[in-house]
Order: sequence, then C-alpha cells, then structure tokens
Amino acid sequence: MTLPSPFFELLHTDPCGARRGRFHTLHGTVETPIFMPVGTAATVKTLSSADLNAVGAQIILGNTYHLFLRPGHAVIAQLGGLHRFMSWSGPILTDSGGYQVFSLGATRRIREEGVTFRSHLDGSALFLSPEIAIQIQEALGSDIMMQLDECPPYPADRSYLVQSLRLSLRWARRSLDARNPAGGQALFGIVQGGMEADLRRESAEGLVEMGFDGYALGGLSVGEPKERMEEVLSYAPGLLPNHQPRYLMGVGKPADLVEAVGAGLDMFDCVLPTRNARNGQLLTQYGPMNIKQARFRDDPQPIDAACGCETCRHYSRAYLHHLFRNKEITGLRLMSLHNLHYYLQLMADMRAAIQQDRFAGFRRDFSSRQSISHD
Amino acid sequence: MTLPSPFFELLHTDPCGARRGRFHTLHGTVETPIFMPVGTAATVKTLSSADLNAVGAQIILGNTYHLFLRPGHAVIAQLGGLHRFMSWSGPILTDSGGYQVFSLGATRRIREEGVTFRSHLDGSALFLSPEIAIQIQEALGSDIMMQLDECPPYPADRSYLVQSLRLSLRWARRSLDARNPAGGQALFGIVQGGMEADLRRESAEGLVEMGFDGYALGGLSVGEPKERMEEVLSYAPGLLPNHQPRYLMGVGKPADLVEAVGAGLDMFDCVLPTRNARNGQLLTQYGPMNIKQARFRDDPQPIDAACGCETCRHYSRAYLHHLFRNKEITGLRLMSLHNLHYYLQLMADMRAAIQQDRFAGFRRDFSSRQSISHD
Repeated sequence: MTLPSPFFELLHTDPCGARRGRFHTLHGTVETPIFMPVGTAATVKTLSSADLNAVGAQIILGNTYHLFLRPGHAVIAQLGGLHRFMSWSGPILTDSGGYQVFSLGATRRIREEGVTFRSHLDGSALFLSPEIAIQIQEALGSDIMMQLDECPPYPADRSYLVQSLRLSLRWARRSLDARNPAGGQALFGIVQGGMEADLRRESAEGLVEMGFDGYALGGLSVGEPKERMEEVLSYAPGLLPNHQPRYLMGVGKPADLVEAVGAGLDMFDCVLPTRNARNGQLLTQYGPMNIKQARFRDDPQPIDAACGCETCRHYSRAYLHHLFRNKEITGLRLMSLHNLHYYLQLMADMRAAIQQDRFAGFRRDFSSRQSISHD
Repeated sequence: MTLPSPFFELLHTDPCGARRGRFHTLHGTVETPIFMPVGTAATVKTLSSADLNAVGAQIILGNTYHLFLRPGHAVIAQLGGLHRFMSWSGPILTDSGGYQVFSLGATRRIREEGVTFRSHLDGSALFLSPEIAIQIQEALGSDIMMQLDECPPYPADRSYLVQSLRLSLRWARRSLDARNPAGGQALFGIVQGGMEADLRRESAEGLVEMGFDGYALGGLSVGEPKERMEEVLSYAPGLLPNHQPRYLMGVGKPADLVEAVGAGLDMFDCVLPTRNARNGQLLTQYGPMNIKQARFRDDPQPIDAACGCETCRHYSRAYLHHLFRNKEITGLRLMSLHNLHYYLQLMADMRAAIQQDRFAGFRRDFSSRQSISHD
C-alpha cells in the first residue's frame, strides 16, 4: 500500500508529550522528530549531497529568497527542479522567503498585496506575494512549501502583532488558494502572534480552520529571552491538531531541540551546526568546544570519542586545530560534517527514547552531561 | 615475497621511450608514471583523505617548509607522523623545503652550512641545512625524502649556476650521510644546472656517483620559455640510471605531463589542478573551460560527459556555475575533485598506452583533442 503524500502518521506519544512520527512526502519518508540541515543556496554550506547522506540527513531546507535571486527558480525548474539541481534525492522543505525579506529591515515595504524589497545582491526592486511564493516553491519542486507570512520583530506592540498576524492569516488563505492541489507538495501554515497567548491562539485557530498539511511556529528565536520562547512552547503546540506535523522554525541549540521535542514539536531547522563549525565551535556529548584553543594543538583525541562520524573516525583535534589555524577549507567541511552528525544523532537518540517511553530520563541525562563543559 | 623498500621496478619501455614502472615504498606501491597531488599543509586543499582515495590518488606530496613552520615536525612526530596526522595511509613524498625558501627571494641567505630565512607567517629567523631537512622529513615519516638543494632563478649567470649546482652536490652528499639508512625512507637527489647541458651532466653524474634511490629534475618550470624546458627534457633523463625513478618537480599542465612522460619521466607534482579548480578553471578531454562564463548558467551537462568522477556523475555545469558565483565552498571541493580525477585518469591512460606500446598514438590523439578548446 502506498500512503498518500503528504501524510503524517503519529506513531507514539511519550508520557512527557514528546511525539514519534513519520511524514510521507513525494521524495520519501521522514522519521520525526527531525532536524533539517539548512541548504541556503542549493547547498548545505561546505557539503555535497553525498556528505548529507553520510551524516544521516533525511530532509533538508532550501531558502526561496536566495534561490529566487540566484540562479532564479525558472533556471532551476528548467534544469529539472531543486532536487536534480543539487543532486539530492530526499525530501526538501522550502521556506517562503518571508523571513529573509523580514530580516532586510528598512528596505522592505509590506502591503496587503505582498512585500516589496531590494535584492541584497544588486539592490534591484523585487516583489513577493503569497501567490508568487507558492509559484516559486512549485517551480523549485520542494516536498514541503511554507506560506508567505510576516515575521514581526521582538519586541513589537500588541497592536502591530494583531495587524501582522491577521495579514499573515489572509496570506495563508491566498497561499492555499494559489497552490496546485494535485501537485502532492505539502503546504504548511505559520502561527504568529509574538509572545501573546491569545494572539497565538487566534493565529492557530485561523490556520487550522483553513486546513494545512502541517503547522509551523514562527516568530520565535528572534531575539526574545529564552523564558519567553519556553512560555510559548508550553501552550502553542496544544493549539495545533494532534495528527499533523509541527515545525519550530529556526531553532536552535541542542538544548533547545531537546526542550522543544519535549513540548511536542516534530521538525526543526537552524544554521547553527554548520555556521558554528565554520567558526571552529564543535559539539560533543559534554557540550561545545572551540577547536581554536591552543590546548588542542597536540591533542591526539577525536572531537568526541563517542561519535561515529567520518571526522571523528579519522582525524584528531590536533589535525582540525591545524587546519583551522591554516584556514584550510578541508577543516571547515570536516567540522561541518561532525556538527551535523551530532544534531542528526541527537534526533535519532530522541526518537528511540520516545519510542521506549523514556524521554524524561533522556532529557535529564542530556542536561547533566552538557553541564560538564569543555570551555 | 616482499620486495625491499624503496625499490623501483622498470616494467616496460615503450618504443618512444615512455616508461611503465612500479615503485615500492614503506606505505605501498606506486604505479608509474604517476601524478602526486600537492598537500601543502597536510591537506590537499579542499579535500579529505577519503576524497583522495575516491579520485584514485596513489601518492601525495607534503611541503616540509609549511609543516616545519606549522604545526612543526615535532608535533607531527609526537602525533604518530604525517600519515597518521592527515589520515592518509598511502605513500607520501616530502620536498626538502628548499624550493619554498628559494621563492621567498630577498629574505633568504645561502651559506655553505645551509640557508637562513624568515618565516612568511611571523617573520621569525629560521635555518635549514641538509641535515635539518633530513631530520624534519624523518620526523614526518614520509616515504620519499628530497635532498635540500638550491633552485637557481631563471635566467641566471653561468658562473652562478656552476657555483649553485656544486653547492647542491655537496648538500646532496651531506643529505645521504645524515639519513638513517635503516629507516626504509627513500631519498632522492636533485639535478640542477639550469638550461646548460654540460652543467646538467655534471650535476647528474655527481649525484649518480653518490647513489640515490631516485633522481629529480629541479630548476624547471621556473619561468623559462617552454622550448628551454623541452630542450632539457630531451637529454636530461638520459643522464640518469635506467632502473631508478625520475621525478620532474613542479610540472605541470596536462600537455606538459604527456610530453615529459614521452621523454622518460616517471613522477610529477603540481598545484595547478587544485589551484585552477578554485579559480573555476576545469579540465576536459577537449581542453580547459572556465565555469564562471555566463553560458554555463543553465547548462545541464556535466563538466565532461566522458568523466567518471563524483562531480561529473552527479552535478551539472549549471550547478557548479551557481556554486562558484555564490562563493560556496562546496563548489571548490567538487571542482578540485574533478580536476584531480582528470590528472590521475590521464596518468592511468598513459600507463595503459605505454604497456601496449601505443604511446605515440596516445600523444597524437591527446594533442588533436586538446586543440578543440572550450574557451
């Protein structure tokens, strides 16, 4: 029996509320909870698609804003779509471009119709609407598309948040209307509303009424204190249907992922593992370490003796320290491989813990190990 | 039966004079003629040791000058030697550091004892002698060591060339005396003498009388016209023993390699394939192409349809063009993989042609194909 795509199976819920699921897409099945490496410009920085397979990536993220600007979705469509372009045969989630436009700040102008902005590459004037964002994502051929939304800054006035979330709801409706329902590509709605519980509820209820294939929490990890995000995570997942996937956008550090999985979230993305790797910041079971430090100059150990990645199987901290000091590209790739492997292994460990109803213990052990920092 | 190491077997000589051989080293056997990728700072730029295996590298080169400066040969020795440090289990040839010191120009001072120079990293005063160069290379644990020599500039006065080659001969003697004969590491002498046939002869005869494990031609590809190098290649290999390997240092372009193999040379190294890859210059059976060109923006073809490398099996010119334009590190690695695969495949093709006494035809076909340039 072939399951319809998109289709989410909720396999098990741990007593804590952590969920184990399976999301079926056009390019295969994703075991949740899952972390999605970020492939901004049709590449997860420093890595090839073979590398992504080697570290156990199941699904990756592509940035509509960047691909819209260069090389353009028409070129990618002509070349057979984003999967073929970057030689990645697994599922791809594309964002709507809204977040990148939001982060351009002053140069964007939001109207009912859509958002006008200037390219960060050449300053040319560009326009993105809910319909255009869908059109681009359909041309790219991603497995999961995101609606165009407005991501309000933090902090923001309540009146601004209300207007913004209602605009995002109208854009959600237009996104649903614009998509080709026969295409098989999933479309997710994005819950906004800042840190206000009643506004998050209004946003979630509006979206759920329209009926999306999955729901994301947006507008978090935008500079708010950690406690504010935790507060939102304490109630927002409960506003969403149990039998659909929940995606926490742009989060986060390993400890954030463990907390968010405990709160009932299923999908995550973040540039941290790859960006930190390029800055020499490496993850281990005992917390982060910085390979730049002089004490690693003659350290024969791998980054983490418990890690099974290519980097830890073959190279010492001393070698990575040497490559980093010499600005060798080889080091940036080997460290990116390690950090992504760490994230993906962490998710696999959480999936196993949930399946066996021992997520509470997993979370406790994780916290106590992480407090023994290298730094 | 285990063959003694180092030991060169001359398997076959083609009617043209091209040689097919086998060089046995501490870390395995090298099929000659062979190209050695350059791993300056304990890494072939952008690539891991697994990548080197994937492109078919048999032996790589390490730069004594760079490793002496950073991380230092003592650190590498303490970590188990250069092979273990960079996780490369095949043979390694190390140069003596002389060429890099030579290229520092004005800041070096040559005396009978050795050469004083300043580090390009921090300006500190350093000293290299024939004995120290051997000591460093023994600490690194390379399979083939090179004597310290002086590489004269081009052009140079005859009187300078005479003095220089005689100094290099005295340094050759001291290198032989300094090495541990029980170590199993091969030691090569370097023939100097500029573009003067009688001086090349004096240098070669002096070295052969001392008895090295192999011989290199140095002081070529230093800015002289192509015809001058060809002239030297027409007679210099004949000055060397038939049953020992001959290494042409720092050469060169694919066409140079074909010519030099025809002249009876066995081993080569050059930074061109990797450096050019990082500049977007890619090699194909029809000559070079530059991936930066706008016409590749939507070109769905691989770099070379006849190439079997990872890059050509999975990625289009359009994708590589996109990565290069976006300054994505992934592209630099994929293009380096391709160019090195090209070089190593060219050498494999030459080995097969020599074995079958059809090197003359191979050389003719190669030249006629290369004239159909992409650029």
